[in-house]
Amino acid sequence: MSATPRPAATLLEHLAAVLRPEQISVEAHDLRNFAVDQGPVTDYQEPAVVVWAESVADVQAVVRLAARHGVPIVPRGAGTGVSGGAHATAGCVVLALERMNRILELNVQDEIARVEPGVINADLNAAAAEHGLMYAPDPASYKVSTIGGNVATNAGGLRCAKYGVTRDAVLALEVVLADGELIRTGHRTFKGVAGYDLTSLFVGSEGTLGIVVGATVRLKYLPVEVRTLAVFFPDVQSAAAGVLAVGAARVQPSILELLDGPSLQELDFRNGSRLAERGTALLLAQFDGLAAAHEARIATAALTALGGSVNAQDPREAERLVDLRRHSRGMDVDSETTVGEDVAVPRSQLVRYITALEATAARHGVGVRVVAHAGDGNLHPTFWVPESDDVSVAALNAALDESIDTALALGGTITGEHGIGQYKLRWLPLEQAEPVLDIQRRIKKIFDPQGILNPGKAIA
Amino acid sequence: MSATPRPAATLLEHLAAVLRPEQISVEAHDLRNFAVDQGPVTDYQEPAVVVWAESVADVQAVVRLAARHGVPIVPRGAGTGVSGGAHATAGCVVLALERMNRILELNVQDEIARVEPGVINADLNAAAAEHGLMYAPDPASYKVSTIGGNVATNAGGLRCAKYGVTRDAVLALEVVLADGELIRTGHRTFKGVAGYDLTSLFVGSEGTLGIVVGATVRLKYLPVEVRTLAVFFPDVQSAAAGVLAVGAARVQPSILELLDGPSLQELDFRNGSRLAERGTALLLAQFDGLAAAHEARIATAALTALGGSVNAQDPREAERLVDLRRHSRGMDVDSETTVGEDVAVPRSQLVRYITALEATAARHGVGVRVVAHAGDGNLHPTFWVPESDDVSVAALNAALDESIDTALALGGTITGEHGIGQYKLRWLPLEQAEPVLDIQRRIKKIFDPQGILNPGKAIA
Repeated sequence: MSATPRPAATLLEHLAAVLRPEQISVEAHDLRNFAVDQGPVTDYQEPAVVVWAESVADVQAVVRLAARHGVPIVPRGAGTGVSGGAHATAGCVVLALERMNRILELNVQDEIARVEPGVINADLNAAAAEHGLMYAPDPASYKVSTIGGNVATNAGGLRCAKYGVTRDAVLALEVVLADGELIRTGHRTFKGVAGYDLTSLFVGSEGTLGIVVGATVRLKYLPVEVRTLAVFFPDVQSAAAGVLAVGAARVQPSILELLDGPSLQELDFRNGSRLAERGTALLLAQFDGLAAAHEARIATAALTALGGSVNAQDPREAERLVDLRRHSRGMDVDSETTVGEDVAVPRSQLVRYITALEATAARHGVGVRVVAHAGDGNLHPTFWVPESDDVSVAALNAALDESIDTALALGGTITGEHGIGQYKLRWLPLEQAEPVLDIQRRIKKIFDPQGILNPGKAIA
Repeated sequence: MSATPRPAATLLEHLAAVLRPEQISVEAHDLRNFAVDQGPVTDYQEPAVVVWAESVADVQAVVRLAARHGVPIVPRGAGTGVSGGAHATAGCVVLALERMNRILELNVQDEIARVEPGVINADLNAAAAEHGLMYAPDPASYKVSTIGGNVATNAGGLRCAKYGVTRDAVLALEVVLADGELIRTGHRTFKGVAGYDLTSLFVGSEGTLGIVVGATVRLKYLPVEVRTLAVFFPDVQSAAAGVLAVGAARVQPSILELLDGPSLQELDFRNGSRLAERGTALLLAQFDGLAAAHEARIATAALTALGGSVNAQDPREAERLVDLRRHSRGMDVDSETTVGEDVAVPRSQLVRYITALEATAARHGVGVRVVAHAGDGNLHPTFWVPESDDVSVAALNAALDESIDTALALGGTITGEHGIGQYKLRWLPLEQAEPVLDIQRRIKKIFDPQGILNPGKAIA
């Protein structure tokens, strides 16, 4: 609380009047734990207080008090974001939504669920699976990340190659605005075009326009059949070309992941496997639905023709590899010396982009490994340097900047699914022109005239 | 030009200075033809002038001149909208975009197309089909309606049961703002979360926030196998229950259309068929992809168990029926005595809603027939009265109002895919609360402070 003692103290008294003691903490370890998410930290700041909302009314009360005291609010789900979207600003209220974790409704006939923001993605999927349904967006953090956080970042994942991203799954939202008012956007129905699409405006807005306190999401049918291929290639360019070959064969994988040689070595190191011996790059392709086997055969032919080596012997190994890939996130938290990127490029540029990444890393003397949701052209290169000295960090940043420039030059975007957060703000003006940035600032002003909702995030 | 002769005359001189004579008309028949779309007309007004833009620069010039003269602009694609979104306001400029009809790029590897707004939906599909691709959203007007119009209304269609609506297909837009400035939103990549989702904000905004002059859309794989079922039912409730039965069997049709008895009689009358003899309601289900035959078998079992009679003998008839259904729109233009609705309800409420519609029609002594994109819970009931006298029209409106109230009471929306336009404005406050309407007004104000972009449309 050192940053802004007086207003925080007053705010604390007010918070204590509306919340139970267990919902408020100013303990040093809480302030520290809730100061950052899993994104790179460039300007460490601690909140004045952490509050755990347990109801919509709690959120409204906290927002009203923060507005009254002019104190910023940083909303937070599980804190698994990797762009610093939940990093604290100095003296802010961190509004933790993890206790609002009830699935309020799971309507099997309507194929929708209505959830509080703190529901864990995997918990919703477990509940849906009992009815042969699934919540499709599956960020690598799905076992721990919340639907509210997924909505805030418009999270992607592995399955979005076939099933779309969070925005495609969200039908309606309940949102507490900066003045504490509760609004409802969207519709319970699959389709609806009444008025402007405010639901999509909130999805991906990283808590800067309002606090999402409820979401109605569309469920999809849980596939009864799944076929998974693990295809090793002699080089990463061939593997990337395989993505286009599967597309040219006109079969739609539900998952299509690419791992380069250094990523295979990393997996080997962690898991004691010997993947890197079998190829310099790996393509994991999963097909689902009643035609899964047929589609997998078509993809196998296309990939074998490119020099890929398919693990026809052991389909369970391919499933295990997808699981390893799924859970790889969360083990390496970004730091000053290791930064994971999230660019996306048009699929036709995958080969060229990966080649350019390797050249960039070599030129700057930094390490790079690449995993990609290749079906979507969404790449997660991780750059690293061994030391945190100024020269190393400068080289790391130069490589990062160049990787961004290259992605944009190839028609790509600086963030496919992780969001701008705090860390990527410096690159946003490279992608979006000033009039577009200005429109966003003016929209932000409508929703948050005081500028207290997650300031310094998402927009430039 | 009778409404506002002086400013229009001055504007005309300015328009004539920047456009060719063939791009401008003040001829009476043009003003009449471009005064309305296919929506109900409650307040007939004519434009002062119709201009045909042939380039982005044309659009910018026209918008700048209209802004300078304070004259409203009504953008228009093919004029096939059915909510009056392209109805003229008195003395406006109708900005026709039909001549901007070039497919600028069809990138087979990236699986995207970049088009001008006047490209006909069917033309884009024909071009994509040569490469085994398709542009999925297929409103019933797809043979004549434009991508720009589809974007303006966030058009749905038959295939969106499986493939999503226009919003799901649009990756990026080029938009001329109210001051003539050109901006670009979105990304060429399948995924992208940089900044607020302005693309989705423009999609469905019916030309009230800017003029869409270019769209980058995602293409999907054209299915190589298709199976179509035509299933007759003894009553419409059983057919509606069939929608849930197909869902419970966890197979996803690409098309799932419902037609009630009066709709079958209407088709018989138009086409000399004898459908109504075979049942009181018809469900058309299409499955596509490599598992189409398998999925159709599963659906057949589920529907037969409900008392449905499947045309196992002649699959071609089922395809013909889907074609008839597809093209049914555009033959009956809405009028004072015949109004087609566009509500959507959660799927579990389909049976109840259709039963309520029949009761509503009977109570008010008006006719009703129902076709529905039943897989999405999106219904198009058409109410009609034989005469245009005050009593009949009052009964028609009472039935319409009641059908809207019922849809909302069941958790539905007043418009699933046609848009608010001008005609449905009166119902919008029933669906959306004042704070939500207010946010939309304030967003509109950011984009169009003068209020010249399609005024009186889309938002309340």
